[in-house]
Amino acid sequence: CKDPRKVSPNDFFYTGLNVPRRTSNRLGVNVTLLTADSIPGLNTMGLSLGRVDLAANGGLNPPHHHPRASEIFYLIKGTLYVGFITANPTHRLFAKILTAGDVFVFPLGLIHFQWNIGSRQAVGFAILNSQNPGVVTTANTLFGAVPAVLSDVLAKAFQLDVATVEYLQQLPWQNP
Amino acid sequence: CKDPRKVSPNDFFYTGLNVPRRTSNRLGVNVTLLTADSIPGLNTMGLSLGRVDLAANGGLNPPHHHPRASEIFYLIKGTLYVGFITANPTHRLFAKILTAGDVFVFPLGLIHFQWNIGSRQAVGFAILNSQNPGVVTTANTLFGAVPAVLSDVLAKAFQLDVATVEYLQQLPWQNP
Amino acid sequence: CKDPRKVSPNDFFYTGLNVPRRTSNRLGVNVTLLTADSIPGLNTMGLSLGRVDLAANGGLNPPHHHPRASEIFYLIKGTLYVGFITANPTHRLFAKILTAGDVFVFPLGLIHFQWNIGSRQAVGFAILNSQNPGVVTTANTLFGAVPAVLSDVLAKAFQLDVATVEYLQQLPWQNP
Amino acid sequence: CKDPRKVSPNDFFYTGLNVPRRTSNRLGVNVTLLTADSIPGLNTMGLSLGRVDLAANGGLNPPHHHPRASEIFYLIKGTLYVGFITANPTHRLFAKILTAGDVFVFPLGLIHFQWNIGSRQAVGFAILNSQNPGVVTTANTLFGAVPAVLSDVLAKAFQLDVATVEYLQQLPWQNP
Amino acid sequence: CKDPRKVSPNDFFYTGLNVPRRTSNRLGVNVTLLTADSIPGLNTMGLSLGRVDLAANGGLNPPHHHPRASEIFYLIKGTLYVGFITANPTHRLFAKILTAGDVFVFPLGLIHFQWNIGSRQAVGFAILNSQNPGVVTTANTLFGAVPAVLSDVLAKAFQLDVATVEYLQQLPWQNP
Amino acid sequence: CKDPRKVSPNDFFYTGLNVPRRTSNRLGVNVTLLTADSIPGLNTMGLSLGRVDLAANGGLNPPHHHPRASEIFYLIKGTLYVGFITANPTHRLFAKILTAGDVFVFPLGLIHFQWNIGSRQAVGFAILNSQNPGVVTTANTLFGAVPAVLSDVLAKAFQLDVATVEYLQQLPWQNP
Repeated sequence: CKDPRKVSPNDFFYTGLNVPRRTSNRLGVNVTLLTADSIPGLNTMGLSLGRVDLAANGGLNPPHHHPRASEIFYLIKGTLYVGFITANPTHRLFAKILTAGDVFVFPLGLIHFQWNIGSRQAVGFAILNSQNPGVVTTANTLFGAVPAVLSDVLAKAFQLDVATVEYLQQLPWQNP
Repeated sequence: CKDPRKVSPNDFFYTGLNVPRRTSNRLGVNVTLLTADSIPGLNTMGLSLGRVDLAANGGLNPPHHHPRASEIFYLIKGTLYVGFITANPTHRLFAKILTAGDVFVFPLGLIHFQWNIGSRQAVGFAILNSQNPGVVTTANTLFGAVPAVLSDVLAKAFQLDVATVEYLQQLPWQNP
Repeated sequence: CKDPRKVSPNDFFYTGLNVPRRTSNRLGVNVTLLTADSIPGLNTMGLSLGRVDLAANGGLNPPHHHPRASEIFYLIKGTLYVGFITANPTHRLFAKILTAGDVFVFPLGLIHFQWNIGSRQAVGFAILNSQNPGVVTTANTLFGAVPAVLSDVLAKAFQLDVATVEYLQQLPWQNP
Repeated sequence: CKDPRKVSPNDFFYTGLNVPRRTSNRLGVNVTLLTADSIPGLNTMGLSLGRVDLAANGGLNPPHHHPRASEIFYLIKGTLYVGFITANPTHRLFAKILTAGDVFVFPLGLIHFQWNIGSRQAVGFAILNSQNPGVVTTANTLFGAVPAVLSDVLAKAFQLDVATVEYLQQLPWQNP
Repeated sequence: CKDPRKVSPNDFFYTGLNVPRRTSNRLGVNVTLLTADSIPGLNTMGLSLGRVDLAANGGLNPPHHHPRASEIFYLIKGTLYVGFITANPTHRLFAKILTAGDVFVFPLGLIHFQWNIGSRQAVGFAILNSQNPGVVTTANTLFGAVPAVLSDVLAKAFQLDVATVEYLQQLPWQNP
Repeated sequence: CKDPRKVSPNDFFYTGLNVPRRTSNRLGVNVTLLTADSIPGLNTMGLSLGRVDLAANGGLNPPHHHPRASEIFYLIKGTLYVGFITANPTHRLFAKILTAGDVFVFPLGLIHFQWNIGSRQAVGFAILNSQNPGVVTTANTLFGAVPAVLSDVLAKAFQLDVATVEYLQQLPWQNP
């Protein structure tokens, strides 16, 4: 904790969240997450905010979940196909096509994604009720773990052959 | 609670948050707050989201606090003078001029405001970590209470004469 | 945290809460609040206790709220007019005249007050469910902020002219 | 939950907590506990308040704990020997003689007691951070359980012979 | 909630958790999870308990997470390779070979797995701090969602070709 | 907190919980409790796990409660008579005879016990939703407190004569 006498308005402030982020990467996505690390005044406040840029024609914030937060997603530009999937045993997909001005809720801990199906860059905001929500990008976590998960485990879990798993495991897994 | 089998994607969805709201009222402000009432899927999720439109040249979201939520405010358009004031005994004002893309934090339960000092309509988003945060607009609550608070109480508290208080109490107090 | 081996009964103890406090000030009020600062054993316990002395004939604990606590108020001596006001949009005043032995509840984060309408000093106790509840005295916070809130903001919020606001802003604002 | 439109100030109110309670019973104690059952407005507020009357010369609020609350005890009249005992393995007694105006803290879930060592009736207030804190009076719970706990269990636990346990189990166990 | 007068010891009871479960399925796993649905007395208690049976030579509780719980896993029989993977950006695998009597912790919301590397059936217990923790089996959720997730999304996320994804999506995905 | 870069799988691991504990003591009981002290990875995880060994023919985990946790008890070997007692005013005993494979719930903060009524050593596991639940063994706490509780207090509370209380107070009180 900072000495309260030394706290200033800048400790509650961040600038530049409107600046478009580069999305020229394999997934076509760029996530800027503001937590208590970037805004000290968020300490103990139970909130964080992320900007999500998605490249035109297929930019993807791939399936992921937040171990410690629910999310409201608000789309300000573009057209997205978004969804979350419920837990065992139903695995119901709740999906929707969003256009600018639409809001969608991703419940606590459930896997969700945003996929740019439009022909221009899309931008949305992720609102999270933790100052440290965490992000677990599913594929990256499983296939990009260090050290690697035993390939037999992933092969059996995903119904893939071991060679495919090991091929995946040696690929680079860029995080959004 | 809704029967889980009858829940659909629309229960997690809201549309039209990008539509500018009318701000032609005394304060020059319009707040659209999405809680579990407007998005059933927010139930138990601990989050809500508000859109704040502020008229050019002085639109004001007047001093208020949220009894059950911290807030991150994100300005997407315009120029605002915003601030919050700490509790007794310091009453320190933490204020900042925000332009588009700026973020500011209003800690749990503290009084804060947004004031449009620019020459065009401003729009920001209020991110709150409760599905039912509540809004207590300070002046409206005190001078517009029904039934009215004893004028002697407000006169003494605000160091105003009773006539002024009673004049204020019969005014209309529009909520943002 | 204190070394547990060095903790003694005195860390859970406070004496003298029955001693009448001086109320010879503008508001006619004196609040003694026992938090984890005054009783180390309250650390992590989620409780605090305040004594409120109110001068005869108009002593006022002016409208205020606690950002992090609900309150039970228990009056042991005197006659008070007390109340709280609900959030937007209703602003309902829930008020009551209390005499010795009466109890009243002030819900989490709502603005409330105690006003001595009797001819003798009154004494009550404020029971709060946080070891650090905070007190935001409304008028003091808004008109006594350091640095001052822009007078235009307060004038518009309170429907006062700017001169009145600036007059108020240069007054002393004593906290209870 | 009550329909909000039908809520009135009386739902936040209780009267008569200053009336002395009868303590002419075996223990010489009378506890009046105000929870959400007696004050509907305490619902979801996380607080309750108890009045404890203790007969002169030995009135006892016997060892007990609150399964869901920490406590601040405030003595307004009389002289008490009070204490709590820490958990395994230390079992440290933190005890103190209190006179009017003294405050003592009983941490969450620990066994504590109040014993009137003065020659006049004593009165204190128990402040609890739950709207439904629960009271487990130790001896009454163990020896007055319905149906009875196997006497062998209590005999071994308390290092008493079975006959003594069974004698105790058929006694009346009045709750404070 | 059940009427308290009708609650009986059986509402806090479950029998037969020691009976071996059949593991003759594709994954070689069988999970019995006791929540407030199976033991009404767990309501509001913040706990649940699962039994995990894993077939000899490769029974797998495949990568999954609990959206609302941390876990302690206790192995009573067999030899397992278990692990969890941390969130972005590190994706560190914390893995260990467990034998009977070993305990391992899976932090809140992180993906983890148990893999039987021994030549006999293994049995462990999963201890969870929620009465309704939820289970999201990663592969099943993503590839077995109903309706199916757009194959393009999964192909890009997992760096698989669309044909492979669609092949996977039409497979049966048995939950543990 | 440990530096995250220095954390290893062993910080989430404990071995040997399957090793029978010695129960050759007065109560015939041995409790091994794994908290964040023994498994650093439990820090902030809200869970702990205990092993309870009970000697044949009368081993007793004597009446106790956890100030900060609910419990699920799972019996893996032996035959126990277990129970908990509700708070004032009902003091209902909820008891049950358990055999291997049975599960029983002890609600937050209520006094409970386990008594071996079988002819072989019994072993169970206590699952607790706090990383630091605390154990208050009732008789030990009251009669073994240091310094001693005034014998008059215990005599009156337990309806025992003072000589019996003082005899008990000088006995050794072994904790499970």
